Amino acid sequence: MSSDSAPKQLLTKFVVSPLTGPSPYIKPYCVDFVLDGVNRKWHCMRNHDAVVIIVYNTDRKALVLVRQFRPATYLQRCLETNGGKLESLMSVETAPPLPAEAGDVLEACAGIVDKPDKSLAEIAAEEVLEECGYRVEPDKLELVGCCRSGVGVSSAKQTIYYAEVSDSVQVSEGGGNAAEGERIEVVHWPVDQIDQLLLGSGGTSGSCNEIYIGLQFCLLWFKVNKMQSS
Amino acid sequence: MSSDSAPKQLLTKFVVSPLTGPSPYIKPYCVDFVLDGVNRKWHCMRNHDAVVIIVYNTDRKALVLVRQFRPATYLQRCLETNGGKLESLMSVETAPPLPAEAGDVLEACAGIVDKPDKSLAEIAAEEVLEECGYRVEPDKLELVGCCRSGVGVSSAKQTIYYAEVSDSVQVSEGGGNAAEGERIEVVHWPVDQIDQLLLGSGGTSGSCNEIYIGLQFCLLWFKVNKMQSS
Repeated sequence: MSSDSAPKQLLTKFVVSPLTGPSPYIKPYCVDFVLDGVNRKWHCMRNHDAVVIIVYNTDRKALVLVRQFRPATYLQRCLETNGGKLESLMSVETAPPLPAEAGDVLEACAGIVDKPDKSLAEIAAEEVLEECGYRVEPDKLELVGCCRSGVGVSSAKQTIYYAEVSDSVQVSEGGGNAAEGERIEVVHWPVDQIDQLLLGSGGTSGSCNEIYIGLQFCLLWFKVNKMQSS
Repeated sequence: MSSDSAPKQLLTKFVVSPLTGPSPYIKPYCVDFVLDGVNRKWHCMRNHDAVVIIVYNTDRKALVLVRQFRPATYLQRCLETNGGKLESLMSVETAPPLPAEAGDVLEACAGIVDKPDKSLAEIAAEEVLEECGYRVEPDKLELVGCCRSGVGVSSAKQTIYYAEVSDSVQVSEGGGNAAEGERIEVVHWPVDQIDQLLLGSGGTSGSCNEIYIGLQFCLLWFKVNKMQSS
């Protein structure tokens, strides 16, 4: 499915409320520490580790990316539009102020690490199948490396893989786990148009949503390490 | 100050407790939304927008990076070491299980956007002075672009700049805002050794802490866009 063929999504409700009780996703902590004799405090949160997979379709000479509605991005967009007034998003009477597309973000295939009985490569292969519809063997994934994200807040670990796929191993349309409410659009982005997505390379003068920092790394990594041979 | 000359830091206390009251840093929200007729909920948090500056010293042919103790990273390292048991970090009787260095993270110069009366470029120039000790004029900063980080959780906006500096505009040792408890080590990283920090380029097989995803982007961006002319 190409980006152009995706049907328009309809957002009919978007209501924000302060999170008061415990959440399985946002677990805030206070850290009280003494470094070189100076007492300091820091607020942070625990977050799941993640796997990220840079998927390249060698037949189509295209990167296989995903686009989905991100509530946090939509919320930020609304606040950037209305001058930061959260209150106007807290009433059930108020219709969503922006179309659903304002929350769409283009990303590399990724998933959280929440299956202790599976290896990271197995979890990564499952995400490629579930989100993108391509069957890859875990032992065919190339390990790019491991890094941290959000070091100020959660510092969760990301393990990044590279996968080459072909049309012959595309077994479904992908789209995510419908039972979990996922609704993911698969985007085949031709690598000869990669600069259109890259910061400071003449592209992406438009929407911030297209240029998630994690995707920027994946695009640049592919360009530097794989473009010559692709 | 080079990385090698930095004195060892001493961590004498590190105690974690659940954050119960309101925090100026972690503001969790629940979003209740209906997309294409399907009702979903999402937990996210608001976070400050940030500026990031890729600083290059043309005299030394070195990137000017910063290294600092990150409590969230230290916490994650402890949990990764002890099998995820947070409880052992919650007692004031327990000494910090790892040395302070376990929480050190190498990053590009950056700061949060919290001064409504200043432009993003002005805030960026202040961070370069405060953290790295170099005086740069806001209008000499090259805009790399703007992107989002943590799209699943906060989706805050990052505006990334590039700054070229020389020894003649180094007016202090940098080190951050001591009054705010910042204690930042300035690291001049020779660009001919940039591959040692890059994922999947033969380097960084060691610590995850050295390879924050944001720094990875900055290093790759510099390599692709500025290395030829440096």
